Parts: sequence; structure tokens; C-alpha cells
Amino acid sequence: MAKPLNIGMIGYGFMGRAHSNAYRKVSNFFDLEYQPVLKAVCARNEDRARAFAKNWGYESVETDWQKLLARDDIDAVDICTPNNLHRDIAIAAAAAGKMILCEKPLAMNVAEGEEMCEAVEKAGVANIVWYNYRRIPAVTLAKQLIDEGRLGRIFHYRAQFLQDWTISTDLPQGGEALWRLDVDAAGSGVTGDLLAHCIDTAIWLNGGIDRVTAMTETFIKERQHNLTGKMEPVGIDDACAFLARFENGSLATFESTRYARGHKALYTFEINGEHASIAWNLHDLHRLSYFDHRDDSVVRGWRSIHVTDGDQPYMDHWWVPGLQIGYEHSFVHQVADFLDGAAAGKEVGPTFRDALETQKVCEAVLSSAREGSWVNV
Amino acid sequence: MAKPLNIGMIGYGFMGRAHSNAYRKVSNFFDLEYQPVLKAVCARNEDRARAFAKNWGYESVETDWQKLLARDDIDAVDICTPNNLHRDIAIAAAAAGKMILCEKPLAMNVAEGEEMCEAVEKAGVANIVWYNYRRIPAVTLAKQLIDEGRLGRIFHYRAQFLQDWTISTDLPQGGEALWRLDVDAAGSGVTGDLLAHCIDTAIWLNGGIDRVTAMTETFIKERQHNLTGKMEPVGIDDACAFLARFENGSLATFESTRYARGHKALYTFEINGEHASIAWNLHDLHRLSYFDHRDDSVVRGWRSIHVTDGDQPYMDHWWVPGLQIGYEHSFVHQVADFLDGAAAGKEVGPTFRDALETQKVCEAVLSSAREGSWVNV
Amino acid sequence: MAKPLNIGMIGYGFMGRAHSNAYRKVSNFFDLEYQPVLKAVCARNEDRARAFAKNWGYESVETDWQKLLARDDIDAVDICTPNNLHRDIAIAAAAAGKMILCEKPLAMNVAEGEEMCEAVEKAGVANIVWYNYRRIPAVTLAKQLIDEGRLGRIFHYRAQFLQDWTISTDLPQGGEALWRLDVDAAGSGVTGDLLAHCIDTAIWLNGGIDRVTAMTETFIKERQHNLTGKMEPVGIDDACAFLARFENGSLATFESTRYARGHKALYTFEINGEHASIAWNLHDLHRLSYFDHRDDSVVRGWRSIHVTDGDQPYMDHWWVPGLQIGYEHSFVHQVADFLDGAAAGKEVGPTFRDALETQKVCEAVLSSAREGSWVNV
Amino acid sequence: MAKPLNIGMIGYGFMGRAHSNAYRKVSNFFDLEYQPVLKAVCARNEDRARAFAKNWGYESVETDWQKLLARDDIDAVDICTPNNLHRDIAIAAAAAGKMILCEKPLAMNVAEGEEMCEAVEKAGVANIVWYNYRRIPAVTLAKQLIDEGRLGRIFHYRAQFLQDWTISTDLPQGGEALWRLDVDAAGSGVTGDLLAHCIDTAIWLNGGIDRVTAMTETFIKERQHNLTGKMEPVGIDDACAFLARFENGSLATFESTRYARGHKALYTFEINGEHASIAWNLHDLHRLSYFDHRDDSVVRGWRSIHVTDGDQPYMDHWWVPGLQIGYEHSFVHQVADFLDGAAAGKEVGPTFRDALETQKVCEAVLSSAREGSWVNV
Repeated sequence: MAKPLNIGMIGYGFMGRAHSNAYRKVSNFFDLEYQPVLKAVCARNEDRARAFAKNWGYESVETDWQKLLARDDIDAVDICTPNNLHRDIAIAAAAAGKMILCEKPLAMNVAEGEEMCEAVEKAGVANIVWYNYRRIPAVTLAKQLIDEGRLGRIFHYRAQFLQDWTISTDLPQGGEALWRLDVDAAGSGVTGDLLAHCIDTAIWLNGGIDRVTAMTETFIKERQHNLTGKMEPVGIDDACAFLARFENGSLATFESTRYARGHKALYTFEINGEHASIAWNLHDLHRLSYFDHRDDSVVRGWRSIHVTDGDQPYMDHWWVPGLQIGYEHSFVHQVADFLDGAAAGKEVGPTFRDALETQKVCEAVLSSAREGSWVNV
Repeated sequence: MAKPLNIGMIGYGFMGRAHSNAYRKVSNFFDLEYQPVLKAVCARNEDRARAFAKNWGYESVETDWQKLLARDDIDAVDICTPNNLHRDIAIAAAAAGKMILCEKPLAMNVAEGEEMCEAVEKAGVANIVWYNYRRIPAVTLAKQLIDEGRLGRIFHYRAQFLQDWTISTDLPQGGEALWRLDVDAAGSGVTGDLLAHCIDTAIWLNGGIDRVTAMTETFIKERQHNLTGKMEPVGIDDACAFLARFENGSLATFESTRYARGHKALYTFEINGEHASIAWNLHDLHRLSYFDHRDDSVVRGWRSIHVTDGDQPYMDHWWVPGLQIGYEHSFVHQVADFLDGAAAGKEVGPTFRDALETQKVCEAVLSSAREGSWVNV
Repeated sequence: MAKPLNIGMIGYGFMGRAHSNAYRKVSNFFDLEYQPVLKAVCARNEDRARAFAKNWGYESVETDWQKLLARDDIDAVDICTPNNLHRDIAIAAAAAGKMILCEKPLAMNVAEGEEMCEAVEKAGVANIVWYNYRRIPAVTLAKQLIDEGRLGRIFHYRAQFLQDWTISTDLPQGGEALWRLDVDAAGSGVTGDLLAHCIDTAIWLNGGIDRVTAMTETFIKERQHNLTGKMEPVGIDDACAFLARFENGSLATFESTRYARGHKALYTFEINGEHASIAWNLHDLHRLSYFDHRDDSVVRGWRSIHVTDGDQPYMDHWWVPGLQIGYEHSFVHQVADFLDGAAAGKEVGPTFRDALETQKVCEAVLSSAREGSWVNV
Repeated sequence: MAKPLNIGMIGYGFMGRAHSNAYRKVSNFFDLEYQPVLKAVCARNEDRARAFAKNWGYESVETDWQKLLARDDIDAVDICTPNNLHRDIAIAAAAAGKMILCEKPLAMNVAEGEEMCEAVEKAGVANIVWYNYRRIPAVTLAKQLIDEGRLGRIFHYRAQFLQDWTISTDLPQGGEALWRLDVDAAGSGVTGDLLAHCIDTAIWLNGGIDRVTAMTETFIKERQHNLTGKMEPVGIDDACAFLARFENGSLATFESTRYARGHKALYTFEINGEHASIAWNLHDLHRLSYFDHRDDSVVRGWRSIHVTDGDQPYMDHWWVPGLQIGYEHSFVHQVADFLDGAAAGKEVGPTFRDALETQKVCEAVLSSAREGSWVNV
């Protein structure tokens, strides 16, 4: 019989929905020792918190996250707030002995992230960061192929995260839905929001990054601010690109923007090895492209692998070959793995410590862009 | 406050899972007057029924579908049994005044289907058949574009449903998971299982089919039978292709097989009109291909539409642009629409009567293949 | 030192250009015993013949094909006239002892084709028909893979040739550029013009066709006739689809139309075998799609083979890997193979006899469409 | 009547073939005042020069380029030598009053390039550099769309040129076919060989580049040298990536390598504007991808434009819609435009002066990579 694991959710935005859905679904598709229970949701606006709780079946509502953390009936805290609240909540949650599932990026900067790592490690609480793309089956399969040594020595890594939703000058910044454009709430723009995903995957697949040189741009310099009602300077980076050297000697290019017309959420990566190459993109997330030089020469070509078979990562839990899953399932997989780890007393990545590595690269990137020089991570 | 609508599920196979997931999810993503309640699941094997009930949260278990139908606390019956049980259950359910959601194909043949239509219409109960592909957003968008008249006069329709899972001679037929290969349980092979989907979509998008000429083949003539333990002749069609004329004057080709190496569940359709064409396939179900001849000539081309925006069918209920949903969501959409219809007292298709049209085409196809001649539907 | 082989070209249309280009280029890229010499071009309109000769470097001009055939300095005759002239010219050319390269389809019907075969065989002259698509490198590679047995038992063959250039009712029929729409000059519509290509490739790749059932349609019933100046009934088929059974037991669907909006010249074929499948299309003619079930299961997928490497058919004669050739090169390859065969005294297909098999299928298809029944080839 | 324009070709390698083919074909497909005549080919190895002359129909052979330049019967000189000979030949050719068609990159460095520009400008001779990709019809169409203002303000440019042919350590450097790996003959590796193409197109489409930051790598440090017979250090860059800022404010990433397994000659570019985006790649060179945000929102998507219609650049000279041309045709187009310009006395780009801009960017890139800092162009 599955044991309940009581979740306290802080925040109710886009990620609050994605995580709630994952908690609700996971036990229908995975055989787990723990069963998540939607115990409480916390948000400053009580009406919205109540509406959210009703929609998702949370048993109770809090309007003060400190009260939530003080409750004995909460086992795990899920932090879905804007980035500028991650640190305080996480440190307090660790002190309260709660497991923590924190949205990415880990923190506003490396210093905050260090404190958070120390807090969870000292408290000895299970901790994970929602770099969910690791658990898209095609991406997990990429990791498996690399770990099997199929690629050989790695020469190149490249990643992009391209969007186009902020091109209009009429779009305001700040507040509820648009805190990602407000530097005070977000810390940075595409670097922390999008490149952080690219970097997390890259480190996971290809190891540590040594040094970077970056450029950033803010194409629209001022936007109406939803909190002040006035035109305010835009403090975030609209676009960021950087070159990097990995510890394994491979070269990399990374780029992210919200000004790439035609791309809604096009996260792509490609990795070129001595024997084989791999490519993937989020717009067709259920496919992995794979080229193997060891194939017979006349029939060599990029394979488009439709990652929906039972022997491919996570897919034995879902439907039948050919029937694709979507974005939301990456969160279900993360919950499943997290709960398995919690049951077994084993760490499951990306931990806060893993996410700190990504934070360091982000900080080096922003620093390089400011200084116009190469920066060691 | 949402009103409960108590579901009695009969069957627990692949479709039982897909429907249960839809009932559980729908209220989190759609604002509905009715909220489905998983009241009971019914199956002959009590242990399996209990395991299924526990996994999905059904409140109770029955092992005799007649007892399920006799219960006052069941509002709607979901028929997920092999095809040879659809008629008896549906007719009894109608007599008991239950709403009915029946898996496809509607029946073993047209005669059965007629009886079922009469039963639900006489009883005045809401009824729908699980031709779920109508509610893949890209497919619904195709319907919308056609209804807006964007294509003009239609010249051609073509559809395929290609699989490769029965190529091995070692695969047995019959029993639990393999009833689809047993003609006594399934009625037919790919015609009822796969082409029925193609035909339902085709009639919905392009109107009635007048006449057909078909061929079928059973590549592997005998298979071990799981129920008898002996090699038995294979009675189903492994492959079926037919030509058709639609009432609107357009020409069509349809093909289905389980012997198309490399295709897992490749349902495709394409429709060519005077002004525009549309194409779609299930392996990339979130994309619609669209060609519009009215575009400027130098930049004319097939558009690959990533159907994930809020103004595209159903997508305002899910995530954000660029983040795709999957196969399972088509069932959620069907439940949402069915519940909306039930609340409003409005018929929602495909009704039994709609599905009977598809059954007629299937029967004409099988008859044409036997006789080697054109057959009027 | 290459020996001259004097070409007499009859006709100067689209195919006259394609062939002339091939004759001019072949010796630059292939090391051949024979070198084609553009000796004479023949056309009724002397001005046009002169302009064509000047453009392509033909040494002389004739306006009567019988005079051309009477010339001693012509070794080979290339028949690029409308279909209704093929027979007379070919029979006379054979009688004159000329090698013959004849445009497809071979003839207006099987009876004519039989006569032509008898004539060339009796005369013992080298003969070939311009089914050029066999010599697109990706198509030739498909043949090679099949001959190597990589596909195993074949279950399915499907082919399409989709165009959209005759949708407008304003397009006239007949005369210079539009003789393909005039049944008296063309014999049939898409069946002889487009499906003939599909059938030739199919027989070459998959063996003989046993029987067919077909439908045809003429969507626009009358068009202005360029020769009479009046609206005249359209006698050709605008669209044709048929089902077929091959001698090897595989099932096939074929379709062709000039009413598929969005497709300019989309010739496609796919062949599904027990172990592997192959697909190709003319719009990306330098790529072959290949799926091999024997690949490791987790990395199985359709391979997109960029057929530009030196170990792939014909490609050692061209550029370097990655640099694609185009449509016109298929003609160069046919000339190269024909000249090699002529030098070695060996037959090179598709001969008239090969093309007669295609003619028989076309005739069976048209007959089936008229009669509404299956027809044996 | 076309006037002869006598060509003197220096070199007989891969580019010698590509250009010779273009000279031979151009008059068959373009109506030009000048007709190229293959007057002489020059190479140090007389046997090879004779074989080349025979294959392509050159009337004569020289073994000393200075003798070639001294001939009165040569109107235009085509420089297809290794890069380290461009300067001397070009300057002498200009002094001799010859038109010059020079392979890319223009020179070994900017200083050489400056001298060459001065020489041709002083002499007043027509001059062009073989950046042939400008004249792939899809690329020319991209230029046309940009010039029409369809994209609006440009935010991003990205380009790649990915190959995989030098991954093996067994590959030697230097001499006939492998001079591109020998720094003394080539000047640089992928920067001059591949990125130069990307930069030329970029400047043409998007204007001048202000500054860059780059990294290069030589993965294999030593290779057998064909000229010395010994293992020698590899002096070229195997891979190069750089970030750039254009004068118009847009951001760019460029990358090239010969170590991207699976890519033979994958030149790609993408440009994102306020209203529309464009993408192209050399492996499917006949297609242009185009996204226009002004399309109706529900049917917005990337269009795959099959650039084979008569109203698309250069395509009225070739076949019919749907029938693709290939790599070699870009050279034919360049010859056609050059001859048109020569007849009209008009400059046709890319001139030496245009190519010097690309050379400056290459030099800045290599300098940046050495110094590890941003460099102004």
C-alpha cells in the first residue's frame, strides 16, 4: 500500500499547474512506494489560492509560506514562486526538515545558491530542482547512448532556446504573469529562464564547462511596468549567446532569445562525437535524431527515432508504440524518480548542488557579457 | 459547484486506461458543469478488476456487467470490451437509461449497429463513440479550416493507418491482449480497428462515401490461438486497401496494414482542395501541414503549423505555445465535450448514428474485398 | 580516343532540352568509349528547329523525320515527339538500323507497343525508353538494397505522382506545350504521363503486376482547344488511382493526379518488407529514407540518407559528399549507361520490351476504370 | 550572334571542374551576349593539364601561368589554385588587362587582399570571387525577400558550415587534394574555407559586421605531410566559432567545423526579423524555409518553399516546377551574371572589394581566437 507524501505547493502559476498535474497523475502510471497527496497550496492572494486548490484538489490553503512550513502535515515543499523568493523559502524549508522541490533557476545568483545548498545538505533533506527536460524520454535516451559510449570522443556541443513572445513593444513587464521580464523578480532574462535549461542538460550530458565568452542584448529598452504603472527600463537580457569550452575538450555554442520570430519554445541541442551524433528539439520532443558512422556506408543517415517504445526511457509506463506523450510528462517522470529516491533514501538529480553548477555558468555568462571577455566558470 | 457524473467502466485494457486517465484529468483543465466520478469498474476477472480499481481510484468493482447496469449510482457506462460484446451491453445500458460511451468500432457489423442506434435513440440517452482522433487539436483545426471554406472544391482525400507489430509469425492470437487478432472477438482486422478511424475522420471532414472497391490480405494464415492452445486459421484481415468516391465528387484512397515495417501507428490523411491542401499524421500529431495557393507565389510552400497556441482548438486549456500535448489528450477533449453536451442536453458526435455510417463503409469494404467488385455503401 | 555516336533528335520540347543537355555533359563526367555528337535535330517548324539547333549545337536541321532516318550519318535516333508519333518513327528507325532512344510512354497502347518491340528486336538495334527516374542515384540505391535482399519478403508497395498544374479551368488543351492534355496526341492523361513512371519503377523494384482495379476522373470536362479554337471535351484522365497485386504477393496502391494542390511533381514510392522499408520522393530526390528493423531497438528509426557519396550509385562521377545533383542528371546517367551498353553490345534497360510491360499495366488500368472491375494484366 | 569570351583556367581540381562545367553549360540555358570559350588550361603538371583539357574541351594547355597571362587570346582568367597563389596571379592578370574570376577566399590575408583590390581597380578589369552560394536560387530568393522589407528589423543571424571528413587521424595533409589542410597553402582551415562562405552570404543579406569574439581548435595536432613525408604539426583550425554584432544591431553566431559527425557539407543560415524569419541549408539547397508572422494566427507555420518555379530566381532557365537543380548550377548562374555584367560594363558582385570585407572578418576572427578577446573588424 502506497504511503502518503504530503505536498505543500507555494505558487500557483504555470509551473504550479504543471507540478500539480504531475503529482495527481504519477501514481496511475508508476508503481511507487510513496503516493503524493495535495495537502496545501500557499499564495498571498487567498481567492486565487482557493480557486487553485479547488481546481487541483488541494486540501487546504495558506497565504503565508512560513505558516505552511510550520505545518507538521507537510512532508515536501514545492517552490514555484518567482526566483527572488527561492532562497528564503528553501532555507526555511530545509530548517523545517521538509523535502524540497524547487523551480529553476535555483537562485538569483551563485551566492544565494551556495547558501541553499548548504542549508539542504546540513538539514539532510531530499532536494531537487525542476530541470524537467532531462526527463523527456528522448533526452533521457540521449544520456543513455552517451553513457554507453556510442559517441566516442566529443568534439562539439551546441544548444539553443529560441522564443518570439516578447517582440511587441506593447508587452508590459512585471506582476503576475510577466514577472519573468522584471529583473527584480527574475534576476536575469533568457539566461536564467532559458539558457539555464540548456546548461543543465549540457552539463548532464557532456560534463563541466570551463570557460565562456558571452554577449547579451536588450532589444526593447523600456516597457510599461505592471507594478508601477510607468515606463521603466528593462533590466533583463532579451537575448544571450555564448561560446564555451567543456572540461572534456569539446567546443560549444549556446544561444537564447525571445526575438526569434517563428519559434515558440524551440529548445534544441546537438552533440557531435567521433563515432556518432545526437540532436533533439523541444518542438518535436518525442523524436531523437541519431547518426552512427558505424552503419554501412551506403545506408548511413540521420535516424529519426520516434521515442515511444516500451524499451525506451519511461515509455513502458504510457501507451503503445507510436503514441506520443507531451511536455507535461517530463514532470510526472521527475516526480516518479524523486519519490523512488525518497523511498530508497537515495539522492536524485538534479539536486541543488547540481543546479548550482548551472547557476555558476549563468553567472559567468552574464559577467562575461558585461565585461566583454572570457570568464572562467 | 460541479455535479458528479458517475462512471461505470466495463473493461480494463488499453482503452480502459486511456479513458480512466481522461476522466481523472478533465476537471483540472476544463471548467465543466459535470465532474466525472470513477464509481465502478467491471470485469470478469475480479483480481484484475480490483487491481485496476485501486490503480485508478474506482470506488467499487463488479464482475458482471448486468449488475453494473442495474446500479442506480451509475450515470454513464463506458464500454471498453472486445467488439463482440458492444451490442449486448449497449442495448441493455440504453434500456437502463444510462448514458453510453462506447469504444470503436461501434459493432461487429451494420445489423448490430442499427439495433444499437435504435436502442439509444428510443431510450433518449446521450451516446458517443470513442473515435478520439477527431479531437487531436491539429485534426480539429483541419475541420475548422474546411468549414471556413478555405479549401474550396475538394478533389482528393487519402488516408493510411500503418503499423508493423504483427509481422512475426510467433505472435499468437486471441485472449487478453491479443483479441484484436481473433476474428470472433474483433469481427475484422485492420478494417474495423484502424480503417474505421480513417473513415470516421474522413466522413467528418469530407462528407459521405458513395462506393468503394477494396482488397484485403492475411499474410500469415495461421497463428497459435491463446484460447485453444492450437494453431488456428487467422480470420482477420492483416491489410486492407480501398478506392472510394465521396458524395462531393472527390476521389479517395485508403490503406491500412500491420505489415508496414517502420511505422508504429502512422495514421495519416491528406485532403486536396481547389485553393488549399491539408495533411496530418499521428506520429507528429501536434503539427498540421497546410498549403495555401493564395499565398504570394514566390513564398508559397507547405506550412508546418505547430498546433500549440491558445487560439487553436482546445489549446487554451493546456500549457503555453510550443509545448506539445500527446495522444492521451484527445480522450480528455472527448470527455470534456461529452460532459458539456450532457449538461446542455445537446448531442455530441460521433454519436452511435455517426459511427453507424463508418460501420457501413467498413462493411462495404469487406464485402467488396470478398466479391472483387465495387460496392455501394 | 572516344568514338563519335551521332545523334538525331526528333522533337525540341521539354524533353528535347533534357536529352540534349545529357548528351552534351556526359563525356565530361563519364569515361566512355562512345562520345555523343549532336548531328541533327528534326522538327516540322524549321525556325524553331534552327533556334534549337543553335542553342544546343546541333550541326544540322531536318523538317521531315523520314529524311532524318534516311541519313547515313545518324547512328541513333532520339524520339521526343508527342506519343502518337512514337510508333511510326520507331518502326521506321528500326528498319533503318538506327539505335533508338524513345520517350515514355512507349506507345499509345499495347498493340502499338508490340509492333515496336518486334521491330527493334527483328532489326537487332539497341533500344531504350526514357524512364529516367530509375537513374536518380537514390532510386538506383533502392534497387541495390532490394537486390541485396535487405528487405526480405515484400508486403506493400505504394506510389504516387501528384501535380497541381491543371486545376484552372482557363488552361486550354492541345498544341505545342499542351499536347499532354489532348487525348489524340497523348493517348491518356496522368496514366500514361505520370503513372507510367510509377509503374516502370515498381516493376523494376518489385517485379510483375498481376491484376488491378482502378478509377479515373476528369474534373474539368471541357477546355478550349488550341488547335480548333473551340471548347472541346477533355478526353484525358485528370486523376487515376488503382489497387494492384504483384506477382510476389505484395499489395499495392498507385495514385496520380494533376489536382493535388501544393504538389508540383511529387513522385513518391514506398516499399515495406519483412526486415526493412524504403521510401523516396522526387521533391527531395537526393535523399533516400530507409528503416532497418535489425538496428538496435532503442535507436531504430527512419534514416534520411543524403545520397551524395562516392560509393553510392553514379555519385563518384560528380562532386563531393553533401553536394547534391538534380533532376537533369538522371538523363546523363541514362545516356552513360546506354553508351556503355552500346559499346559492349549489351542490352540496357528499360528496353522497349521492358516498357511494354508498363504499357500493359497502363492499359489494364484504363480498362479497369472504364469497366469498374478488376482486370488481369 | 554571341561573342566569344576566351577563358584561361589556372588549376584543375574540384573547382576547376565546377567552373568548366559552368562555362560549357551557360549558353544552353541563358541567352547571353558573350559565349565562354575554353581557350586554355594551365597547370604545372603537363600530363594532368592535358588530361583535363581533353576532358573538358580546352583548346590548349600551359604549364606556366605567366605564359597564360601573356597570351592575347585570353580574355578572362579563372584562378582555381590553392590560396597562396591568388595574389600573385591576380595582380599579374590585372596588369595584363584580363578579367578575373578568383576562387575564394580572396587571399591569404587582408594585406594581400588590399593589394589585389587595388590592382584590379587600377586596371579597371572586371573581377568577381566565387562565393557561389549567393546564386543558389533559394539563397537569392532570401536576398529578394529581405530587400523587399518582408522581415522588418533584424534581431538575429546565425550560420553554420559543418563537415565531418577530417575526423580520422590517418588522413594526411598537404599536396594535390589535401592542400586545404596545409596552412602554408590554405592560410587557415575552416575559417577561410567554410566560414568565408557564411560571412560572404551574411554581409550580403544583413550588412556589415562590427566586431567578433572567436574560438578555434585543432583537434588533431599532427598529421603526416604529403610533401615532406613526415609527421608535421597541423597549422590550420579544424573548428571555429564566433559571436558577432552586425552594424544593424543584430546579434550573430557563426560556427564551422570538419568534426561534426553526420554532416557532409551542411551550410545553414537563419535570420530572424521582426515580422518574418528565413532559414536555409545546403543539404536541401532547393528549399527555403520562411515564417511570416502576418499570416492568420491559426495557420501560421514555417513554410517549406520548393524553389523550382519560373518566378523564383534563375528558375525560368531550367526545367519545370518541382524538378530541382543542384550544387553545380550556382556556378552557372554566376557565370551568366558575370557575362551579363561584362557585356553591359557593369560590376557584378561579389567583387574583389566585396570579398575583402569577408577577408577582414576572417582575419578579425582568427585574431580574436588567438588573443581571446573581442576584435573590431
